[in-house]
Amino acid sequence: MIRVTIYNECIHEKKNEKAMAIYPDGIHSVIANFLKADDITVKCFTLETVEEMTEEALKETDVLIWWGHVGHKLVPDEVAERVRDAVLTGMGFIGLHSAHHSKPFKLLMGTTCHLGWRENGDMERIWNINPAHPITQGIGRYFELPHVETYAEPFGIPNPDEVILMGWYEGGELFRSGCTFHRENGRIFYFQPGHETFPIFYDENVQTIIKNAVRWAAPVYRSNELVCPNIKKIGQE
Amino acid sequence: MIRVTIYNECIHEKKNEKAMAIYPDGIHSVIANFLKADDITVKCFTLETVEEMTEEALKETDVLIWWGHVGHKLVPDEVAERVRDAVLTGMGFIGLHSAHHSKPFKLLMGTTCHLGWRENGDMERIWNINPAHPITQGIGRYFELPHVETYAEPFGIPNPDEVILMGWYEGGELFRSGCTFHRENGRIFYFQPGHETFPIFYDENVQTIIKNAVRWAAPVYRSNELVCPNIKKIGQE
Amino acid sequence: MIRVTIYNECIHEKKNEKAMAIYPDGIHSVIANFLKADDITVKCFTLETVEEMTEEALKETDVLIWWGHVGHKLVPDEVAERVRDAVLTGMGFIGLHSAHHSKPFKLLMGTTCHLGWRENGDMERIWNINPAHPITQGIGRYFELPHVETYAEPFGIPNPDEVILMGWYEGGELFRSGCTFHRENGRIFYFQPGHETFPIFYDENVQTIIKNAVRWAAPVYRSNELVCPNIKKIGQE
Amino acid sequence: MIRVTIYNECIHEKKNEKAMAIYPDGIHSVIANFLKADDITVKCFTLETVEEMTEEALKETDVLIWWGHVGHKLVPDEVAERVRDAVLTGMGFIGLHSAHHSKPFKLLMGTTCHLGWRENGDMERIWNINPAHPITQGIGRYFELPHVETYAEPFGIPNPDEVILMGWYEGGELFRSGCTFHRENGRIFYFQPGHETFPIFYDENVQTIIKNAVRWAAPVYRSNELVCPNIKKIGQE
Repeated sequence: MIRVTIYNECIHEKKNEKAMAIYPDGIHSVIANFLKADDITVKCFTLETVEEMTEEALKETDVLIWWGHVGHKLVPDEVAERVRDAVLTGMGFIGLHSAHHSKPFKLLMGTTCHLGWRENGDMERIWNINPAHPITQGIGRYFELPHVETYAEPFGIPNPDEVILMGWYEGGELFRSGCTFHRENGRIFYFQPGHETFPIFYDENVQTIIKNAVRWAAPVYRSNELVCPNIKKIGQE
Repeated sequence: MIRVTIYNECIHEKKNEKAMAIYPDGIHSVIANFLKADDITVKCFTLETVEEMTEEALKETDVLIWWGHVGHKLVPDEVAERVRDAVLTGMGFIGLHSAHHSKPFKLLMGTTCHLGWRENGDMERIWNINPAHPITQGIGRYFELPHVETYAEPFGIPNPDEVILMGWYEGGELFRSGCTFHRENGRIFYFQPGHETFPIFYDENVQTIIKNAVRWAAPVYRSNELVCPNIKKIGQE
Repeated sequence: MIRVTIYNECIHEKKNEKAMAIYPDGIHSVIANFLKADDITVKCFTLETVEEMTEEALKETDVLIWWGHVGHKLVPDEVAERVRDAVLTGMGFIGLHSAHHSKPFKLLMGTTCHLGWRENGDMERIWNINPAHPITQGIGRYFELPHVETYAEPFGIPNPDEVILMGWYEGGELFRSGCTFHRENGRIFYFQPGHETFPIFYDENVQTIIKNAVRWAAPVYRSNELVCPNIKKIGQE
Repeated sequence: MIRVTIYNECIHEKKNEKAMAIYPDGIHSVIANFLKADDITVKCFTLETVEEMTEEALKETDVLIWWGHVGHKLVPDEVAERVRDAVLTGMGFIGLHSAHHSKPFKLLMGTTCHLGWRENGDMERIWNINPAHPITQGIGRYFELPHVETYAEPFGIPNPDEVILMGWYEGGELFRSGCTFHRENGRIFYFQPGHETFPIFYDENVQTIIKNAVRWAAPVYRSNELVCPNIKKIGQE
């Protein structure tokens, strides 16, 4: 059983008409829905309930999916640090779209995670540059999203362990749209598309990628605690 | 003093009218010309003289620049292995354009180095995704080449140590256009543009990149030989 | 079902008394034996039958385990290239001990794969530096092998994707004893211990690591062929 | 001119007799002394003056060397974040010994940076596993430090860009003792030895490594600010 937790700040879906029309029950509901499988359980949190994402709740989470945008600063530092620590013990983390600027992702990367951005509803063609990766199974050579928010390089992240997807934008930019990272015991996947005013999470390829990423990010090992041990001499342990 | 050697097969420039018009004295002459500097010396070889690229000639080379295309198979295996071994001792290697399929580059990568290709004279916009890298100094956020041969992902190379440039093509493809690799003591830079029927090596940004790459790839250390030593016990050496 | 093929040159086990005593039926038999599982099949080749390792045989192999030492040069180049190509299409490859100098491993690495070596029967303590990796599951913080052939750095390989095990030797050397690499569609694991005159493949931790590595290296994707396609314009495919 | 800044908390050297005897003027004085060169200037800060390490002071710093241990928590968060940001704009950072747990290093890594540690005065033999790296020039195959604090794997850091030195300890442990990282525009070097109760910074090889690291970490590029720009459409900039 893979225990997935979705955090979606769910602010746009209450205020912005376009977002409301596309995601009447919130982005998290759409994601929770397509993730449904016999061996997957899903819990959701929004900004309103973010403090309930306790250490206990994270211990019982195998993979945390994060969507946030205008509410990044409203997430308490303690929650962000708790998420980071859970990842370091082994919890998987999937950052979607503007989660590049979320507190937990930035803590885990150690960098600004800045990028160039432009909202013109450009078409994005996402290239699969690693057809053998577990996350790209079921995806062809490329697929297209008719309207996205454009993200442009340079993307202020550490050199990813793997760049598996790259985005080509109609307007002339490109971006490392699918990147994996390992941080101590935890696996991290960042996936670029997902703007709130476009029906991106209804796209079949996007769904396949997120479903694959959940299985890829689920831990094979989880440590109980994060310690810096004063070790005994070998043989005297 | 940085001792540069340029290998250019120089076949197109003798047969293809377009190539002849653009590079009447061969691609190597244009490169040799813009590399000229007080602390740089340049020697050139073509397919006709490739066997003269002896072990001695490579020992006296700090950085080898390679341009080849239709003549890859005509380069003797011994020469290719000699080049690989020189890189492993510390010689820098810069592979330009279709050198992705050259024998020495393929030997060093260990992979097919395959890619998708299309000759439509697309515009390529090359994005600088690592503005702090020695090779990208003097280059802006991006620059454009009006006509290139399109190269498409997936590019069958090992995960590069650094991807510093990425190409966006008018026709819809993208490519990791500037990649660095370290192989034992040697530094390798692969740079995508450079088709023989376009005046790419006259472009100022392309020249800046190649000039920077020469300085970046020049060895700080060179081993005399490649050995697998039977070591003595420590203290008994 | 995971289809494993084991290549063991099986020369020492026919000539060297120590090796004969420890591995009377060859190293491959011991490995084949501990790999036995409901979802694993094993085929074996030795130097005598190495030419039977045809393209077809490799297509039907998910993971190839390689043990070779004094017979490296007797493996035909065509077989080595066939193995390399199978890896690039997706076949897993596990190189054991002196396979660092085997033809297929060297072709895949592109480097000398040289190292320092010393045969004193030193104790090796192998440290697990990545407890969350699929290959290190079931292994503690470290384990010890009472007698091994010592391998010393520098090890002439490309920067591995992951170093998951490091060896500490009684005599004062250390080594990156467990390394992973990805080469196009294939996964590669190099594992240092396994000298023919010590009963290393009977060690429980060694067996656990090799069993885990087989599951880790088994492909999720396999390409039919290795091609460098002349692509059509997007939309005209 | 390379402008080096050294931060040394300088607590042990005022209280601990052993440390006082070895470093009567503080660890920073010894480092400042051996760094002296025609093209290097050095400024020092201690915990007492750490707040004077202003944004301005960091802008005027090319490479910051950090030594801290018992006073990590006393460094204000604002200073640590200021240092992180300066690194991301391009300032080099060299973390020595227990700086693995310093606030700026942990912020930059995004991980716990935990390790196993033991104070028995073990001998450490440091192996040079990358003889072609600028930082290892002038160092032989290995060198020995008669007494150090032992650090043991696993070391809770992201996969380094390069592991160039590895430490073998008399007591049976090993450690990735010299690691490089790139974070946006900045270069980072972590170097393991340097316990306050041993005269490690008087060792010639240690000095060579730190001197080389200063030159390696000095920026070739420095950005003015860290921004996430709302970009205009290409051509309308």
